[in-house]
Amino acid sequence: MDTPETDNRPKVECCPSPTQYSLYKDEYDIIVVIDVLRATSAICAAFENGVEKIIPVSTIEEAQTYQKQGYLVAAERGGEVVEGFSFGNSPFSYMKDEVKGATIVLSTTNGTKTINTAKGTGCVVIGSLNNLEALSQWLQEQKKNILCLCSGWKEKLNLEDTICAGAIIDQLLATGLFRSSEDSSIAAKYLYLSARNNYFGYLKSSSHRRRLKRLNLNKDIKYCLTPNLTKVIPYLVGDTLMLMEN
Amino acid sequence: MDTPETDNRPKVECCPSPTQYSLYKDEYDIIVVIDVLRATSAICAAFENGVEKIIPVSTIEEAQTYQKQGYLVAAERGGEVVEGFSFGNSPFSYMKDEVKGATIVLSTTNGTKTINTAKGTGCVVIGSLNNLEALSQWLQEQKKNILCLCSGWKEKLNLEDTICAGAIIDQLLATGLFRSSEDSSIAAKYLYLSARNNYFGYLKSSSHRRRLKRLNLNKDIKYCLTPNLTKVIPYLVGDTLMLMEN
Repeated sequence: MDTPETDNRPKVECCPSPTQYSLYKDEYDIIVVIDVLRATSAICAAFENGVEKIIPVSTIEEAQTYQKQGYLVAAERGGEVVEGFSFGNSPFSYMKDEVKGATIVLSTTNGTKTINTAKGTGCVVIGSLNNLEALSQWLQEQKKNILCLCSGWKEKLNLEDTICAGAIIDQLLATGLFRSSEDSSIAAKYLYLSARNNYFGYLKSSSHRRRLKRLNLNKDIKYCLTPNLTKVIPYLVGDTLMLMEN
Repeated sequence: MDTPETDNRPKVECCPSPTQYSLYKDEYDIIVVIDVLRATSAICAAFENGVEKIIPVSTIEEAQTYQKQGYLVAAERGGEVVEGFSFGNSPFSYMKDEVKGATIVLSTTNGTKTINTAKGTGCVVIGSLNNLEALSQWLQEQKKNILCLCSGWKEKLNLEDTICAGAIIDQLLATGLFRSSEDSSIAAKYLYLSARNNYFGYLKSSSHRRRLKRLNLNKDIKYCLTPNLTKVIPYLVGDTLMLMEN
């Protein structure tokens, strides 16, 4: 991680919260949006299970507008399915036959807002622990400046997204083809290195795990914290997430 | 760090950057401002060496106004003494006879701005690795909600301030009298635990260490990363930092 001024390798960095995005965004070609618990994990699960398109929307009002037009709409706030919607952001919701080939509209507390924050400033791809290896491999091949944008929890940093960013950073730095120079990236990498042998135990005190545990979502948490369940790389085309052909 | 809803112990948390302060500030009685490299380390060194008062100001213009009134004024930007000022924020600048009993006006890139950000919302105290043990002991005795507010670097998180916050959090949690529930606090504690045996080595890639190294400030860095050099606890009274009698 030694980065002399003359180092012209592409950068891979971590932005720990969407509120810090404006301090980072201008220099990056690829933005990896991360919301491990659970939006980006659910998005990966959806594409793995045959969903064709996902339209991420920031507000419940937008979600309702799509619902009136007959779309299949998922909406989550504070960890729970919003009343009146088909489902929330549990990955298991997207493992049913009815979603195969469907276009789903999705609004979540943090993740879909972050996707829309990143929109328009480069190639936006979806990152989670579930697609870690496939995504890291693809990122490595691009040889571009990469920003891992963590969704956090209500504008604050969270542990699971930072660790996922650290995992991507660690894998790319290990190739020798990338550099990191932000302290947030070094911190994310260190947190990943101390967490990687036991994500579930490491995160036992995290605010989000406690929040989801109260909602009886331990099964979801275990799924979201399992690396490399899928090779899908969802990415944004206009306003819609599609599956990258790779 | 288990924090059931019924836990009514006081909180000790970490805000990783002043830009996140508005998300945290309302719930805290004591704000510990941290800028390890180098403002809060220099402030501790100044009081240790007999400075009587320090007036932190955010802008160079304010510093110049005080200078015209005959004050001893220190100003630093980007790691260097600002032209026209007596000194910057090297702790060693404050180890001279001329500062004994003096009132010093101080403006630095990050630290003094953070002090002024925290002003007016509780008791503001100065934290560094240099006064870690004495400060932690005092904090423990207060039994109040405590926020460690990291200055960071130009609005971004930095590693050294986060580690110092993590050290304070770790010491207070070890008493069993406090709780932490923010992920930023858990992350700070983990980073401290992995750094504590070798701060200097751990921080070798940090953006600020690289920045200061270019300015030949390794001696300053080593000083600032040495725990427990002093027992002073500077705190804010109105607009002025004074030495707490403890």
